[in-house]
Amino acid sequence: MISEIGLDEIEPLAIGSAFLGTGGGGDPYLGSLLCREAIARYGPVQLQDVASLTDTDAVFVAAAMGAPTVMIEKLFSLEDQDRAVRALENHLSRPATAIISAEIGGCNSMMPVAYAAMRGLPIVDGDGMGRAFPQLQMTSFNVNGVAAAPMTLADEHGNVVLFEAVDGKKAEDLARPVVAVMGASGCMSCYPMTGLQARAAAVPSTLSAAVAIGRAVMGTSFVEHPPVERLLAALCNLTLYREARCLFSGKITSVERMTRDGWVFGTCQISAIEGCGKAVVSFQNENLTATIDGELRCMVPDLITIVDAETAHAIPTERLAYGQRVAIIACSAPPQLASMAALKVMGPRAFGIDRDFQSLTELTRTSGTIPEGVGK
Amino acid sequence: MISEIGLDEIEPLAIGSAFLGTGGGGDPYLGSLLCREAIARYGPVQLQDVASLTDTDAVFVAAAMGAPTVMIEKLFSLEDQDRAVRALENHLSRPATAIISAEIGGCNSMMPVAYAAMRGLPIVDGDGMGRAFPQLQMTSFNVNGVAAAPMTLADEHGNVVLFEAVDGKKAEDLARPVVAVMGASGCMSCYPMTGLQARAAAVPSTLSAAVAIGRAVMGTSFVEHPPVERLLAALCNLTLYREARCLFSGKITSVERMTRDGWVFGTCQISAIEGCGKAVVSFQNENLTATIDGELRCMVPDLITIVDAETAHAIPTERLAYGQRVAIIACSAPPQLASMAALKVMGPRAFGIDRDFQSLTELTRTSGTIPEGVGK
Repeated sequence: MISEIGLDEIEPLAIGSAFLGTGGGGDPYLGSLLCREAIARYGPVQLQDVASLTDTDAVFVAAAMGAPTVMIEKLFSLEDQDRAVRALENHLSRPATAIISAEIGGCNSMMPVAYAAMRGLPIVDGDGMGRAFPQLQMTSFNVNGVAAAPMTLADEHGNVVLFEAVDGKKAEDLARPVVAVMGASGCMSCYPMTGLQARAAAVPSTLSAAVAIGRAVMGTSFVEHPPVERLLAALCNLTLYREARCLFSGKITSVERMTRDGWVFGTCQISAIEGCGKAVVSFQNENLTATIDGELRCMVPDLITIVDAETAHAIPTERLAYGQRVAIIACSAPPQLASMAALKVMGPRAFGIDRDFQSLTELTRTSGTIPEGVGK
Repeated sequence: MISEIGLDEIEPLAIGSAFLGTGGGGDPYLGSLLCREAIARYGPVQLQDVASLTDTDAVFVAAAMGAPTVMIEKLFSLEDQDRAVRALENHLSRPATAIISAEIGGCNSMMPVAYAAMRGLPIVDGDGMGRAFPQLQMTSFNVNGVAAAPMTLADEHGNVVLFEAVDGKKAEDLARPVVAVMGASGCMSCYPMTGLQARAAAVPSTLSAAVAIGRAVMGTSFVEHPPVERLLAALCNLTLYREARCLFSGKITSVERMTRDGWVFGTCQISAIEGCGKAVVSFQNENLTATIDGELRCMVPDLITIVDAETAHAIPTERLAYGQRVAIIACSAPPQLASMAALKVMGPRAFGIDRDFQSLTELTRTSGTIPEGVGK
């Protein structure tokens, strides 16, 4: 287990977060630059176990909200993030003792580390999803009774908006159009909680899990295997994600994308390089379903990530392009996301998919097809 | 001069505010019911001269924000208004010593009186427009250096949003979509100011002016004249609005209305009952221009109100209907709205009209047409 995030952990964290981002959460590369600069300037960030938080710790979320397609061009600064968190601290008259990530996926795993470095505060080894989700209420925090609001949004012009919403969905509904006015992305703080609440509500060990996944992809662990196998080995080695498999590999033959209401919606079609197999991945910021030859093989909240077939690096939805050779990797969601209460908030029906959740294990058992091999 | 708003002042205030609403600001009838109930319960509200405010007075705006078409059906409550004002007082750690109206037009003249009654605070005899305008930054407060934000919005479900915006236009841009999510109307507090600031920035005596206009329409003053003439006499008697005239009278032959982005846009065509004269009034919540037989005769910020030809009661844009017999009444804007700085914020170009402002006096002088008589 690692005890801090220093310069050496940034690259694996970025790579692992990109995988756990399941296509969304913003490109972690840009976040990693911010992180590198912050750690070089302020020093390494202490990684605090969820279990070690005291009852009275004041845990604050640092996060970005918006459309990943926009975040590529509209960069974040720690000053904007600071305005969002300080506004919430002032409103609550409670200074932060630790920073936590709302989602470990993509940019939202990097920004909190950079911000914790700036503030000289520990970062909690955990988050509210164990992956990424497109909406604010879709967190284990919410499912376990932590309120999303009061929450704050800050932009690069100095505007700050504070929301006192009656529930997480309402906070999402009120904040989303404000983000659109802010130019489709903004810095956020939300789900302010005590250490007692965080212990009950966070998905633990996800930051160190992201680092472990990143190291495997980089080849500093499971060195004897090719990249995609190293990735699968790392996932199977983490109790958090248990089951992991490669569902399909092939070449991207079509990507449809639409940025609307502050999100990016779309589908990606992948065709087998030999034979006539075809896979379709649908997404709303994050990947939602994977269908192989017309048969559903994995669905949200289980994780679906499209990775480069050669390097096993995750490809976020905004970077998917015709001709890329890719593999679709699926793994089980952390148990905190698979409860009945959690599935109501972040299961398939929450995304307008008219099916009950079936886990990766169940869908694989009922499927007759044999996925094409990896790395062809 | 009146010194308080009691039960007897409510009806004339509602009638006068409807006129000064220039078609917008929400139907004051609904606000007057709220006002009547509040004054019956809490007693009359002391009317405080702008000039009598002390430097350290804390003046808070109480107002509604949204689409008048929606406000007819979605009623306001003082509890929602209270949440908005209290959230701003708490944020500023400064309790209100007086309440002020942001716009004297329509509902926004009544709600602050009702709210002042509830709080046992005086209501300032003045506002930020001397009329109604569709956007938050269009106030004499803004033109005279009072910031619109911090401002708050509250809805009937208990949601409160606080905005710290860099300027009035940005506050408008951020708040408008939040109002849309709140169901196209919400309660607001904004432009928090000291007595010193209010003395420099408010349009004075507009509340008592509204009562005087209302009394004339009701027939309790200028009793020897018919209603529209009484209205014109009252306006000419107020130094604030100086010049007033009836531009046209006839029958409404067409109304086009569209509710979009939280506003109601449209045009109203009026045809002479005898002869072939035709007038067109365009509006964005409030009436913006009046054109008679193709010739522009009055433009924002001068006031244009369509009144019932028989009773002289103002008809808000959401109640304009085919077949109504009406007169178009125009009068000069208060001098605070006609400065170069004010015209930039609330002149014709601020509404997308590609013309420099010309006053009612100038436009009448250059016009060759003779308006049809009143009350035909």
